[in-house]
Formats: sequence, C-alpha cells, structure tokens
Amino acid sequence: MNLPEPIARLADHFARLPGIGPKTAQRLAFAVLATEQPRVEAFAAALHACKTQVALCPICGMYCTKGESCPVCYNDRRDASVICVVRDPRDVLAMERAHGFSGHYHVLHGVIAPMSGVGPDDIRIDSLLQRVRNGGVEEVILATDPDVEGDVTAMYIADLLAPLGVKVTRIAYGVPVGGSLEYTDDITLQKALAGRRGI
Amino acid sequence: MNLPEPIARLADHFARLPGIGPKTAQRLAFAVLATEQPRVEAFAAALHACKTQVALCPICGMYCTKGESCPVCYNDRRDASVICVVRDPRDVLAMERAHGFSGHYHVLHGVIAPMSGVGPDDIRIDSLLQRVRNGGVEEVILATDPDVEGDVTAMYIADLLAPLGVKVTRIAYGVPVGGSLEYTDDITLQKALAGRRGI
Repeated sequence: MNLPEPIARLADHFARLPGIGPKTAQRLAFAVLATEQPRVEAFAAALHACKTQVALCPICGMYCTKGESCPVCYNDRRDASVICVVRDPRDVLAMERAHGFSGHYHVLHGVIAPMSGVGPDDIRIDSLLQRVRNGGVEEVILATDPDVEGDVTAMYIADLLAPLGVKVTRIAYGVPVGGSLEYTDDITLQKALAGRRGI
Repeated sequence: MNLPEPIARLADHFARLPGIGPKTAQRLAFAVLATEQPRVEAFAAALHACKTQVALCPICGMYCTKGESCPVCYNDRRDASVICVVRDPRDVLAMERAHGFSGHYHVLHGVIAPMSGVGPDDIRIDSLLQRVRNGGVEEVILATDPDVEGDVTAMYIADLLAPLGVKVTRIAYGVPVGGSLEYTDDITLQKALAGRRGI
C-alpha cells in the first residue's frame, strides 16, 4: 500500500531539508495533516515569504528583510573598523548570541571547496576586498570554521588582504571551555598547543 | 540582532512540528532560503495540497487521495472478515511494511486518554461497531500500542464487541526479535512471560 500521492509529495519536500530522513519526513507530513487548515496555509505563506521578502544586505551579505536596512551595517553603535568574516548567516547569529563582538560582519556564503566546484569567485571575497579598499577598516578577523576548507579560505583571503595594509587575524581554536583534555580530539589538542600564550 | 521577520516566522512554523526544536527549526528555515524559488513554491503548494487533496476513507479512516477509493477497503484480494484496529494512519503503514496482514483496517485516530480530554466518542469507535454490526466480520484484532492508554482503549473496545459475537484478539507483546533479555525493560519481560505459549 502506497501513501496517498499528496502526502508522499509533501514528505518528499521535507526529506530534501538537511538532517531530515525519509522516516522523519513522513512523520512531519502526517503532522501537517493533523494540523488545522489555517495554520497550514500560514506555513505555506511563510515559505513563500521567506523566499520573496528576504534579501542579502549589499554590504555584509547577511539576510535582511527586504526594504529594511541591515541592522548591523546601519547601526552607528557598532565599530565599522573591524570586520569579522564568516562562512554563512548562521555564523553571524552564533557570534551575536555570544555577545562578544561589536564590529561589522562579512558573510562569504560558502568556503573555497575545489572538490565541490566552489572557487574563490563563487563566494563573496571581491566585495570584502572592496570594503577594505574603501577605507576605514583596521582589522579583518577571519572566522571561518577550523576545517580544511575553512583554513584554506582564510589563508587565501589573508594573502589577498596582505598588500592592503590591514591587520588580519584568525579566531583562536583550542579546547572548548568546559571541555576536558581527555575527550578532546587530537587535531584540536594540537591547535590548542600551537596556539598557547604566555600568562 | 534578531532574525529577519520572514525567517523567524518560517522557523516558528517548523518548530511547531513534532520533534523539531527551535535550533533545528532555524536551520531548516535557512535551508529553505538557500533553496531555489521554484522548489520552495512547490513545497508551499504541497503543504496546501496535503490539506485539500487528502480525505479519510469513510470506511476504515485511513488517509486517501480525494476522489480515489481506499486501496485497502476496495481491494477484492484482501480479507474483509478480519479488521485490524490501530491508533493512527502511520500504524497502518507500519503493518503494511511488515507484509504480515492481508485483512482490512480500522483507524481510530487516537486512543482514549481522559487526562488529555479524549473520550470514547472522540475516536472512531462507533464506526467500528457499525462495521461489525453490518456483518461479514469474523475477527477484530486490537493493535493499539502496549501502553496504558492503548491497553485501556483495547479493553474498552473489546467490552463493546463482546455482545456482537465476533472473535476479539489483541496482538502479542513480548521481547522483540533480535532483542536480548538483558536489555529488555521489566514490563515487556512481564508481558513476554504472561504471553508464553506451548511449543
């Protein structure tokens, strides 16, 4: 016995989302069936709105509501002389949650990954260089993930920024606060050792 | 910094689905943003279609595509003299996947749960009694879950069916195939002992 076609189709759409397997997708489709019609229509409208009412900030590349100015780039209380470069918009949210940064951001929307066919021109590196060339930027913090692709992207950008006379830094990687040495993986431990500081 | 409103609204809709927490919901909303527009529109249409093109089979209560007859109730090769009573449509799918049953189904769409305000009249018990009264049914298998509410519902239905002269059975509960006694919980072990058979 097959699932009725409309349910199977909805489950298929759920299954395309990251981290949702076919069984979970089916469960979610059934949950939609058990939801009142107005709420489902609102869900459908929210999907549509998410694609049509959200735009990228032309400066930093963060998602913004269309027609509104970016809450970071147009905030006078933030320090425009420091730019934190991250891979994607969720990283901006993570940094903001941590409340430790009051500068501006630059979202690359990806990292250099030749195996996946993503080259330097496919991510927002040019617009970063342009921002630095426009002046007023003193430091660029490279905060891509500490994996091969994130490291390569950071090195690539650092090379391009070197002649522009700005300070270029990379965020620190090491043993997470609350973590224990025993359960920390080898590479993190190596990075923690290499990044040691005088106290 | 808050999420742009359209993203937050979509994440909110995802978070209402079972098993989706606020962080996963946000991740899913971002995944939608990264999806091409036509696919998102198709997703929204599928949500709408799921509510408008799916109906309950008036006989068994399983979800069916509107305008099509139920693939179980209108299948001559299935045995109409046996009805398997389950809590919800997903249970029908599980039974069908197991390929062990060739009779008809009856979906209750819930179990008796006084604490949640669900009484016998809120689930499809009346239509089950009517099916049995219409004749041709020899056995009713009660396959609600082996928890308090599933057991209570099964007992309640069994009492109502007793005067109608059909055989009423409950599916067996015990140690799952491939499971080990050591890791089986106490109540399952008790049920497995109580349900022992001669060999």
